[in-house]
Amino acid sequence: MSGSSRAERLAALLQEQGLDQLLVGDLVRPGDSAPDAISNLRWLTGFSGTSGLAIVGAEDRVFLTDFRYVQRAQREVATEFDRATAERELLAGAVERLRGRVGYDDAHTSVKNLRKLEQLTPEGVELVAVGGLVERLRRRKDADELRTIAEAAGLADQVYGWVFDRGVVGRTEREIMLDAHQRIRELGADDPSFPAIVAAGENSALPHHGSSQREVGTGELLLIDMGAAVDGYCSDCTRTVAAGEIDDEARAVYELVRSAQAMALEAIRAGVDARDADSTARDPIARAGHGEHFGHGLGHGVGLEVHEAPRLSQRSDQTLEVGDVVTVEPGIYLPGRFGVRIEDLVTVTEDGCRNFSNFPKELRVVA
Amino acid sequence: MSGSSRAERLAALLQEQGLDQLLVGDLVRPGDSAPDAISNLRWLTGFSGTSGLAIVGAEDRVFLTDFRYVQRAQREVATEFDRATAERELLAGAVERLRGRVGYDDAHTSVKNLRKLEQLTPEGVELVAVGGLVERLRRRKDADELRTIAEAAGLADQVYGWVFDRGVVGRTEREIMLDAHQRIRELGADDPSFPAIVAAGENSALPHHGSSQREVGTGELLLIDMGAAVDGYCSDCTRTVAAGEIDDEARAVYELVRSAQAMALEAIRAGVDARDADSTARDPIARAGHGEHFGHGLGHGVGLEVHEAPRLSQRSDQTLEVGDVVTVEPGIYLPGRFGVRIEDLVTVTEDGCRNFSNFPKELRVVA
Repeated sequence: MSGSSRAERLAALLQEQGLDQLLVGDLVRPGDSAPDAISNLRWLTGFSGTSGLAIVGAEDRVFLTDFRYVQRAQREVATEFDRATAERELLAGAVERLRGRVGYDDAHTSVKNLRKLEQLTPEGVELVAVGGLVERLRRRKDADELRTIAEAAGLADQVYGWVFDRGVVGRTEREIMLDAHQRIRELGADDPSFPAIVAAGENSALPHHGSSQREVGTGELLLIDMGAAVDGYCSDCTRTVAAGEIDDEARAVYELVRSAQAMALEAIRAGVDARDADSTARDPIARAGHGEHFGHGLGHGVGLEVHEAPRLSQRSDQTLEVGDVVTVEPGIYLPGRFGVRIEDLVTVTEDGCRNFSNFPKELRVVA
Repeated sequence: MSGSSRAERLAALLQEQGLDQLLVGDLVRPGDSAPDAISNLRWLTGFSGTSGLAIVGAEDRVFLTDFRYVQRAQREVATEFDRATAERELLAGAVERLRGRVGYDDAHTSVKNLRKLEQLTPEGVELVAVGGLVERLRRRKDADELRTIAEAAGLADQVYGWVFDRGVVGRTEREIMLDAHQRIRELGADDPSFPAIVAAGENSALPHHGSSQREVGTGELLLIDMGAAVDGYCSDCTRTVAAGEIDDEARAVYELVRSAQAMALEAIRAGVDARDADSTARDPIARAGHGEHFGHGLGHGVGLEVHEAPRLSQRSDQTLEVGDVVTVEPGIYLPGRFGVRIEDLVTVTEDGCRNFSNFPKELRVVA
C-alpha cells in the first residue's frame, strides 16, 4: 500500500465491498457540520472547513464545497481531487455526480437527509448503507500522523509540568483549566483537544466532571485530563497528583491504578484482542475489590478525533493493529470520596507499543 | 402559556400533532453527543452533559442518562422529570418506556440508529419522523433567556473595546483571537460561543476565515466576528474597523454596509417575513452594484446554539415572532481585496426590536 494515496486506498476498499462510489462527509448537517463530524473528510482530502462532501470511486475524486470555503479548498484539498462549488445545498450538487452502487455512511447520515438524497438521486443509482469504511483506514496512522500526535502529546506533558510547578492548592479547578488551555495555545497547539477536566477531591470520582469553582484543598487528590490538538490531530493524557500529603488509602488506590496501567502497557501489541488488553488492567483492579469502581473501558483510539476506533473494553470485538493510536487509562472512582485515573497515549507496534506520554507517573505531591 | 413548563408546552404541541410521546436528544451519537447536538435536551430538561435522552408525553417526563452523568443529572435536570440511569446504550433503556405513536426528530437521528430503534421497539409502538418541534418552541426566548443572552452580548461588547484599545497593527490575527478568547473567559463567560474570526486585509473578504499568522497591517480593514457563551446561551457580533487610515473605496463600502444594516434593524418587528427583512439590507447593496458580493443571508437565530431558527434569507419561509433572537449581519466581500460585515444581535418585539449589541458602529480607526 505504501505510496498510494488515501483516496486510492479507499477506492480499493470500495471495490472489495462491491461499491462504485462512496459519499464522504457529514450527511447530518452537510452545510454546517460540527467540526468533529468531518474528520473522515479531512483525513481523505485535507479540508479543514465545516462544509464539504467528497465522492470517491475508481475514477472519481470529487470535492464539493460552498462559496464560503472555495479559497480554503483551493489551499487545502489534495490536488488529486476535482474541486467543485455547489450552491449552499451540497446534497443537490452531489447527486448529479453519482453513478452505480453508491455507499453512504449510515452513522453520519440523518434519516431526513437520506430521504432527501433518495428523492434527488437519478434513476439507476442505488444507495447502499455502509459504515466505518473510512474509519477503518484512519486507524493505521502514517509516519506524519504519528509525528504530529507525538508533538501534541509532548505539549500536554509540558503543560503538566508548568501547571504543577505553579502550585494548585487554593486555586479553583476552573482557574487551573483556563491556565492550562492558555498554555497549550501559547506552546503552539491549535487548541486544547477537548475542554480539560480538572477535578479535585470528591470531584475526581466523577469520570466526566466539568471543571468548577471548587478550590483545590490540601491533602486531596487532583485529577487533570487534557490534551492538545496540532494540525487537527489530538492528544489525550491524564495525571492524578496529591495536593499536599494524602492518606494511605488514597495512596494505595493510586498505586493499584499505576500498576494496572503498567500491566496494560506491557500487554499492548499488534494482534492482541482489545478486550484482552482491557482485562489486563481490569483483573487486578477487580481482584483488589474495586471492579465496580472502574466503570469505563481501558481506552479508545485517538487521531483527528479524540475518540475514534478502536475501542478497548470488554464489549470490543476489535484486535489491535500496527499504527493504532490508543489511550491506556484505567481508573478507580470511589463516589463522594476520590478517584484516580492514569492515562497514556501510545501507538501499537509489532512487538509492543511506543508511549507518547512521558510525564512521570510516580505519585507526585504538589503544593 | 405563561407559567407552564417547557415540558408541558411540548406535551401540548405533541397532542396537536397526534403524537403520544417524543424522544428528545441526539440520536446520531446518543452515548457521546457533540455538545451542539443536545441543545433541545438542555432547553427541555436543563441537562448540560453529553449523554442523555428524554421522553415526553402527556403523562411522561423521563430523563435517561448513563452512569457518568448521574450526579450531574441530579443537580441539573428539572425535578418534574423522572431520572433513570441506562446502561451506556441509551436507546435500549429508552425503548422499554415507549408507547403509542412516538415521534423522533429525523434531523437528529442517524439512519443507523433508526434501524436499531426499529429493531428494539416493542410491538404496538409506531415510530413517526417529525422535525423541529422543540426548535419551534425554543424560538420564543423567555425573560431569563433574554437576560442571559443580553449578558453574553454585553461581554462581547466589552471585549471589542479591550481589543481595540490594546492596538491591532503588527499583531497576528491569531494573537488577537487568543487574547479575545482569554478575555471572554476572564470576564466570566463559559467560553467563546465559537472560535472568533479575526480577518485582516484580503482575509476579511473570506466570510468564514480561520484566524491565521498574518499580521495586521496599516491602512487595511480588520473584521472580528465573536461571541460569548453564558450558561449555555450564545452571543454573536461582528465589527469591522480600520487599522490606520483606509482609502475612500473601503470607506464607501463600509458606509454602505452600515446603512444597509441600519435599514434592516429598522425593518425588524414581529410579523415581518424573514425574506423581506433580508431584502431590506440586500436591495440597497445590490443597487450599489454589490449584489454578488453579499453571498450569505441577513442573519440567523441565536440561543443555546449559535445558529438556530429562524433563518433570515431569500430562501426562508419563516415569519419573525416576538421572542426571536436573531443576528442582523449584512456584508460585502471583494475577493482578494477586503470585506466588511457589521452584525448585531437583537430580539424581536411587537413593534420593533431590542438591540443587545451596543459597541459603536461608526467607522473606528484603530492603531
